[in-house]
Amino acid sequence: MTSTLTDPAALPGWTTDPAARAAARLDRSGFDPGSDPDAVVVAGSVDEVAAVLAHATATGTPVVVRGAGSGLSGGAVAGAGSIVLDLSGLDRIVEISPADEYAVVEAGVITADLDAAAAAHGLRYAPDPASLAISTIGGNIATNAGGLRCAKYGVTRDSVLGLDVVLADGRRISTGRRTVKGVAGYDLTGLFVGSEGTLGVVVGATLRLRPAPVATATLAAWFDGIGAAAAAAAAITAARLQPSVAELLDTACLTAIAEAGGPAPRGGAFLLVQTDGFGADAEIDAVRAVVEPLAGPGSVEVAADPAGAEALLATRRAGLPALERLGRVLVEDVAVPRSRLAEAVGAIAAISDRTGIRIATMAHAGDGNLHPILVLEPGRELDEQVWACAGEVFTTALRLGGTLTGEHGVGLLKRRWLRDELGDDVVDLQQQLRAVFDPRGVLNPGKAI
Amino acid sequence: MTSTLTDPAALPGWTTDPAARAAARLDRSGFDPGSDPDAVVVAGSVDEVAAVLAHATATGTPVVVRGAGSGLSGGAVAGAGSIVLDLSGLDRIVEISPADEYAVVEAGVITADLDAAAAAHGLRYAPDPASLAISTIGGNIATNAGGLRCAKYGVTRDSVLGLDVVLADGRRISTGRRTVKGVAGYDLTGLFVGSEGTLGVVVGATLRLRPAPVATATLAAWFDGIGAAAAAAAAITAARLQPSVAELLDTACLTAIAEAGGPAPRGGAFLLVQTDGFGADAEIDAVRAVVEPLAGPGSVEVAADPAGAEALLATRRAGLPALERLGRVLVEDVAVPRSRLAEAVGAIAAISDRTGIRIATMAHAGDGNLHPILVLEPGRELDEQVWACAGEVFTTALRLGGTLTGEHGVGLLKRRWLRDELGDDVVDLQQQLRAVFDPRGVLNPGKAI
Repeated sequence: MTSTLTDPAALPGWTTDPAARAAARLDRSGFDPGSDPDAVVVAGSVDEVAAVLAHATATGTPVVVRGAGSGLSGGAVAGAGSIVLDLSGLDRIVEISPADEYAVVEAGVITADLDAAAAAHGLRYAPDPASLAISTIGGNIATNAGGLRCAKYGVTRDSVLGLDVVLADGRRISTGRRTVKGVAGYDLTGLFVGSEGTLGVVVGATLRLRPAPVATATLAAWFDGIGAAAAAAAAITAARLQPSVAELLDTACLTAIAEAGGPAPRGGAFLLVQTDGFGADAEIDAVRAVVEPLAGPGSVEVAADPAGAEALLATRRAGLPALERLGRVLVEDVAVPRSRLAEAVGAIAAISDRTGIRIATMAHAGDGNLHPILVLEPGRELDEQVWACAGEVFTTALRLGGTLTGEHGVGLLKRRWLRDELGDDVVDLQQQLRAVFDPRGVLNPGKAI
Repeated sequence: MTSTLTDPAALPGWTTDPAARAAARLDRSGFDPGSDPDAVVVAGSVDEVAAVLAHATATGTPVVVRGAGSGLSGGAVAGAGSIVLDLSGLDRIVEISPADEYAVVEAGVITADLDAAAAAHGLRYAPDPASLAISTIGGNIATNAGGLRCAKYGVTRDSVLGLDVVLADGRRISTGRRTVKGVAGYDLTGLFVGSEGTLGVVVGATLRLRPAPVATATLAAWFDGIGAAAAAAAAITAARLQPSVAELLDTACLTAIAEAGGPAPRGGAFLLVQTDGFGADAEIDAVRAVVEPLAGPGSVEVAADPAGAEALLATRRAGLPALERLGRVLVEDVAVPRSRLAEAVGAIAAISDRTGIRIATMAHAGDGNLHPILVLEPGRELDEQVWACAGEVFTTALRLGGTLTGEHGVGLLKRRWLRDELGDDVVDLQQQLRAVFDPRGVLNPGKAI
């Protein structure tokens, strides 16, 4: 057997160049494995991916798959002893079917590029993680990435119809289908989505595209504080409205935006809502009707045109860049039932007060997904106190009936708390499943579960 | 170990009464296992379910889980040597959270009952299989049931947030969460959905509810034949419209409805479209604009009010009852990419001509899901020729890039073709996964994969 294996070192994309190895060591999580990977292989084809994996399984060599390296949970960090398999070169949009509203893509396609290609047919790729201009579809699939529009259109898993996967031993399989419905066999597609490179290497995907909405309407509202803003978000839900976007910024975010020279805060909390489709205008009017009593007078604006919508969106967009100007940031990601949103934001502000670590929270209010952003003073590193503070945020989410991670993945950062959320039996089962796919444990070991 | 096990024969719901066993032998698939199960246990609690499963694993006894017995693929048929575990008594709606838009239910809840309970809060449970008045949520989950509204709102899997499951050895686990988003660990929830009772016994579920639409608009159109009707469905897609319902009936359906005393056909094919939400009326106008050129003059009607909508829906509803009056029916279920819909209906009509077996086709045109209904002459049984005819329908779907089953499941009926669709590597992987959950193979053996 072994004699027929291709040595990955013979592949054209193989390098042990120190700069290339150093560049493949980190992602955007802030976690440093303390050493560089042994080598990097920039895959030129699916055959090469298969060759790398067959060799890895035969030799017991850990493989870390990398797309854009934009992950926030440490899923792509790689240290000594491992090989990084870089899929960014597999970036072909193979097919867009306007008639069947799907796209077939390679894993390295940049998410925004797919969305743009779909737009040419009046379609769009619904999941819109904040990283969409730089992150790859493969990375989005690995973490089951979310985004703003998930409130109405679901997460990455809801847009994946089928996958092309190379298994740990180099075999290639396809899962799923090109039809919207289908129940033949277990849902391997859904199992691979969010598995963070531990069950197989996703090299291609068939993705559902959706009609681009004929109209979008945008509303912004300012509130005295987070309580009123969360009450407004709850009132939208209680009115059985279905915004496509519902974004909330807390006082700490608004303060940071002002400090960075952005618009002065018009209140202690900010809510941005978009509706879309044929009834966008009527639905935004219904949103306004329930939001206005909770915001101050003159504190609700509905955009009259696209330029007005952009102006309202500017406050939301200014949040993260403003925080990044203040110091190094750790972008966290938890989710709670929507009804616990105000409680979660309040508890996180209390953690900030208690630890002295500045935390600003943005939330996808439509689905209870919070991004508490820890901002470190200049010069401060991600020390144990910072991680302990993040840990308090995670356990707060669990206490409120939520989850450790809404859309970024477990990676390295959250494994310590995984049994608290899932329970021992479930984690043990998942490890047994992992062993079916990867008996030698070469796929992204130490990550995800 | 064994000494601490509860013997299921000691449970209050245990019976070996011949009538009870005979009643638990069949589902609605038409498949007869040729003998009755050894016993039936009507579970009175989750503890009793756990006791039955622990005993089954300890003794190697096959267990077939049964809800309403309304399945169409043979997933719930049970013969000699097996015990039927009847969950229909676990029928509590435990919680409805209007604030978080979810419901917590036991597996035996009737789907329509949940939908009605949700309606009291302006919500609905989106999946609407044709069986919803009789089928259980547990059965819907087992088969990943679909329905008419899937075109816009997805299948059962898209509405399941979390599950309570009893494993084969009697351990109880919970999967998923009560938040809309969450990526901690592998997606076990999605894996259990559609697994037809082979990975564990789903005893409860946390289900996503969605806002009931503020408005619904209904259009009906008659066409010369299936080609024009499919072209109209394709034109709706090409116009990037998103109906909540798009149902197509072929000539054979319309003829049967007329034979049964229903409305005379106004063409050779019928398309029913609904739109919903704030823009329902504007979107149905857009549907009309693309459909009208393809239908005959005066062949498009838009309902002016709910009574008018009911009148238009009557034709669709009359289809299956009309066919059932003509003889015993075998309701099949395949899906193809939407662009192959006309080709699929045409190929199925050709199979009917060639075999002499009457086949009428209804389709969920919005997602390419066809229900070819084989109608047997009075007195004819489901003989080998009938199954061969069904087999031709399945392979036709595969040839057109589709799937063996869109929403009914594989059960017993379609296992023969599963490797043709999935390939050996995928089926083998699935069997290994099954062995992780059920090492002794006691859960619904011989079904699904």
